[in-house]
Amino acid sequence: LKTISNSRRCYKQWLWFMVLFMSFSVIYVDAVWPMPQMISSSMARYTLNPREFIFQYSSGSSAQPGCSLLDSAFERYYPPRQHDEWFRFPFTVVVHVERAECEGYPDADSSESYKLSVCSGQAALRAETVWGALRGLESFSQLVYQDDFGEYFVNETEIEDFPRFQFRGILLDTSRHYLPLHAILKTLDAMSYNKFNVFHWHIVDDPSFPYQSSTFPDLSSKGAFHPLTHVYTQIDVKRVIAHARLRGIRVLAEFDSPGHTQSWGKGQPGLLTPCYKGTVPSGTFGPVNPANSSSYQFMTRLFKEVTSVFPDSYVHLGGDEVDFTCWKSNPDVRGFMLKMGFGTDYTKLESYYMEKLVDKKGPKWRLVWFWQDVFDYHEKIPVDTVLHIWKGSPGQIQQELSSITLAGYRVILAAPWYINHIDYGQDWEKYYTIQPLNFTGTEQQKTLVIGGEVCMWGEYVDATNLSPRLWPRASAAGERLWSDEKMTSSVIDAFPRLVDFRCRLLRRGIQAEPLFVGHCRHEYQGI
Amino acid sequence: LKTISNSRRCYKQWLWFMVLFMSFSVIYVDAVWPMPQMISSSMARYTLNPREFIFQYSSGSSAQPGCSLLDSAFERYYPPRQHDEWFRFPFTVVVHVERAECEGYPDADSSESYKLSVCSGQAALRAETVWGALRGLESFSQLVYQDDFGEYFVNETEIEDFPRFQFRGILLDTSRHYLPLHAILKTLDAMSYNKFNVFHWHIVDDPSFPYQSSTFPDLSSKGAFHPLTHVYTQIDVKRVIAHARLRGIRVLAEFDSPGHTQSWGKGQPGLLTPCYKGTVPSGTFGPVNPANSSSYQFMTRLFKEVTSVFPDSYVHLGGDEVDFTCWKSNPDVRGFMLKMGFGTDYTKLESYYMEKLVDKKGPKWRLVWFWQDVFDYHEKIPVDTVLHIWKGSPGQIQQELSSITLAGYRVILAAPWYINHIDYGQDWEKYYTIQPLNFTGTEQQKTLVIGGEVCMWGEYVDATNLSPRLWPRASAAGERLWSDEKMTSSVIDAFPRLVDFRCRLLRRGIQAEPLFVGHCRHEYQGI
Repeated sequence: LKTISNSRRCYKQWLWFMVLFMSFSVIYVDAVWPMPQMISSSMARYTLNPREFIFQYSSGSSAQPGCSLLDSAFERYYPPRQHDEWFRFPFTVVVHVERAECEGYPDADSSESYKLSVCSGQAALRAETVWGALRGLESFSQLVYQDDFGEYFVNETEIEDFPRFQFRGILLDTSRHYLPLHAILKTLDAMSYNKFNVFHWHIVDDPSFPYQSSTFPDLSSKGAFHPLTHVYTQIDVKRVIAHARLRGIRVLAEFDSPGHTQSWGKGQPGLLTPCYKGTVPSGTFGPVNPANSSSYQFMTRLFKEVTSVFPDSYVHLGGDEVDFTCWKSNPDVRGFMLKMGFGTDYTKLESYYMEKLVDKKGPKWRLVWFWQDVFDYHEKIPVDTVLHIWKGSPGQIQQELSSITLAGYRVILAAPWYINHIDYGQDWEKYYTIQPLNFTGTEQQKTLVIGGEVCMWGEYVDATNLSPRLWPRASAAGERLWSDEKMTSSVIDAFPRLVDFRCRLLRRGIQAEPLFVGHCRHEYQGI
Repeated sequence: LKTISNSRRCYKQWLWFMVLFMSFSVIYVDAVWPMPQMISSSMARYTLNPREFIFQYSSGSSAQPGCSLLDSAFERYYPPRQHDEWFRFPFTVVVHVERAECEGYPDADSSESYKLSVCSGQAALRAETVWGALRGLESFSQLVYQDDFGEYFVNETEIEDFPRFQFRGILLDTSRHYLPLHAILKTLDAMSYNKFNVFHWHIVDDPSFPYQSSTFPDLSSKGAFHPLTHVYTQIDVKRVIAHARLRGIRVLAEFDSPGHTQSWGKGQPGLLTPCYKGTVPSGTFGPVNPANSSSYQFMTRLFKEVTSVFPDSYVHLGGDEVDFTCWKSNPDVRGFMLKMGFGTDYTKLESYYMEKLVDKKGPKWRLVWFWQDVFDYHEKIPVDTVLHIWKGSPGQIQQELSSITLAGYRVILAAPWYINHIDYGQDWEKYYTIQPLNFTGTEQQKTLVIGGEVCMWGEYVDATNLSPRLWPRASAAGERLWSDEKMTSSVIDAFPRLVDFRCRLLRRGIQAEPLFVGHCRHEYQGI
């Protein structure tokens, strides 16, 4: 067998050696989604006998058997089988990793690049990190296809690949509807097939507080839709984080405040601002009360817990859509405004609240993300903050991209991918043709756009319709965020590839809806 | 125990006797969907112990044990359980049917009325037919509810009920996407919960011909997406018909022609019109060739099979969207036009085709349905034809209703319920507020509107998203077609009832999507 270091030259040199293994076919579809940065393949193909196939660590790889992350990936992609006695020359996928982080978590600066070479009757996968190796395994799995007789093949292929954007996220909203754990785990599976790498868990909001806090158990026992069945226990959260880790996905937790906190108030009396009607409390509540020092003490303790539970170096602090009406009605808040010299500018009060929140960072307190509102209304934001663009017309979005990057902040683009909004017809094209860097700014500014995010807000979505609404529509954004824009600018070229990829998702049990009239060889066989 | 004949008086007389069984609660929701024509209930309620509950035929009922239809309904609603030794005073649902049609099929004139009385620690259900008894069992099942501790209750209730419209249909399109059998059967289940009574099976169309004909096996072996996996065998079709029958649902098969027949041409060479480009055939094909007598011979044989396979007295012959371009291009068709004296009026040719199709009716040939196009373009339609309105603005639809009923034809309204079209938000309200009889016409004309139909065309729908797109959106149309319009005119009143009913659908395994922010006690636990 050839050594791995020769593999790059294999394609030409070994072409004629392969006749025993090869056959030619038009079935082969160039099927890796999202499109790798560089891919070349020939019509030469190898038969993959399911009983003669193994994954193996290369001898020089820093990851070796026992690397939990890759061992479990091998098992997902190809569970060990009973092999025949005459098992002699298996098709081997040899994996080489330079830096093993087998027990670590993916983070903002994790490399996901990899090189994959399928030739000489084997595949060689090289990556700097285990995260890159995961991406390469996914690509390899997508090179495998079946003919009409059910035989498996993989074509001679060379891939060099890395993501265009470091941050490729999906937001799920578990407050407007509770999503059972299996729905979250299934989404993480599908994310990994699409090479998404951040699960933005918008875990609590106005309607419900399903996160079961160990510090403040009343938050969920009183603020969840149901204290026992509609909560995420600490074990549930750990399971989500572990499931995500094994797929190279970060879990970015968002505890949005001071607005979007109605459900918090149920289990934490005194936290929210009592709204007034004239001179008497109306019985309703507004955003977190920024005039009470107890609010900040509560937040400090809550985020101390959050940052110990979620291993990612970022937490998302929200900060969007703060309605000032209730603050304005409350005499204590008005008194506080006077005392602080804010006049009648309530954005200063909001700003004060956000700064106090960020100021609280101790050794366990980490980097933060905000929705764009925090940039729009406030001046003093730490320079390591990441801002999330979630609203505006295409022109306004371009303007916001310019402004935020000009101010030197890193930015995530979410606004064009509010995928909870649905339309009749093939709206994936809309998500596919977004050009995230199409705004006025220097090259330096463009590097500050670190990625994008597909947002599935939960007003009309729960476990019954999450998967078909998300997939394959989010796959369009997945390719936009991973692949080279020039190589993937054509909706017409993308269509048959996405149709093919969607069938692959079905085959893997993802309830991905059809793009248009047609069929998959294996239709969805769920409930 | 009280005799059934006293049951109507039970509500008042026995109220004070019931104290032992009663407790008062605010949990109870007036939850029968669609709303019965007359319903009254009290807060008095009986506990239903799952181990002390039975269905029973009344002694005078013409249906008795052995009635396959009701026996299996009893089993669906309440599978027999191991009872305790001390099983003494079970809660009994006593069912009385005047005319047993236990082995029959529901048809256009089947009565679905029923009376249900829950009092004196039992329920009495009276219906003219088994079909009415099925509707009554469904209503009874919806009266049952659980409290927070999981105990089951049913309140004292009196219902007199019958459908407003005789025809309450759902169309599924199995040509644009193949729907696996389980998806069809599941839809039939959900239809029965909503008291829909017609499954309009748009079984074949341009993209594929999945119906496996015994007379013309090539139609599916060449015209289906796949000859083995994407077909409905004769056994599959029988299973659908049997499943529907047990739920009081008719199966109305549609074999649409002369347009919408591209897939037919693959297995039946010579059937379609060869299109011409100038003086030479272009290689493409148009509608069925109306100039060939062999076309009619083929149709006669096909429909002879269809009418023997499908027991309903109606078949749907389609007749919509016939494009004349190809006919005009073909010299043989032009010659035929000349010979028949049709001039250049191709609607006359279409008319000729439809008339020949209907003329072919022998003893096994039955009543027919057409899409409205056949009325719009043709004059000679048999008076027993039913016409389907599928297009137009609200004003045009009203006009069409007036015209068709003025001409004395019966009509089904489908146009306002093209539920495949989706929008963001609560679009069920749109389907709920349709007023099918709001058009200019006499009372006699209004009686000719025999019902309505929800159409789920398959361009963007397959088994992955069928259920959440259909339910509970179609439930809105279900109530409109069954219930009194005055009693159900308010979207605001309907909302909490529909929310409650949707949770009931979830509990029964129907993947019904949420209406808005909130939760169900039992969330969807499917794949």
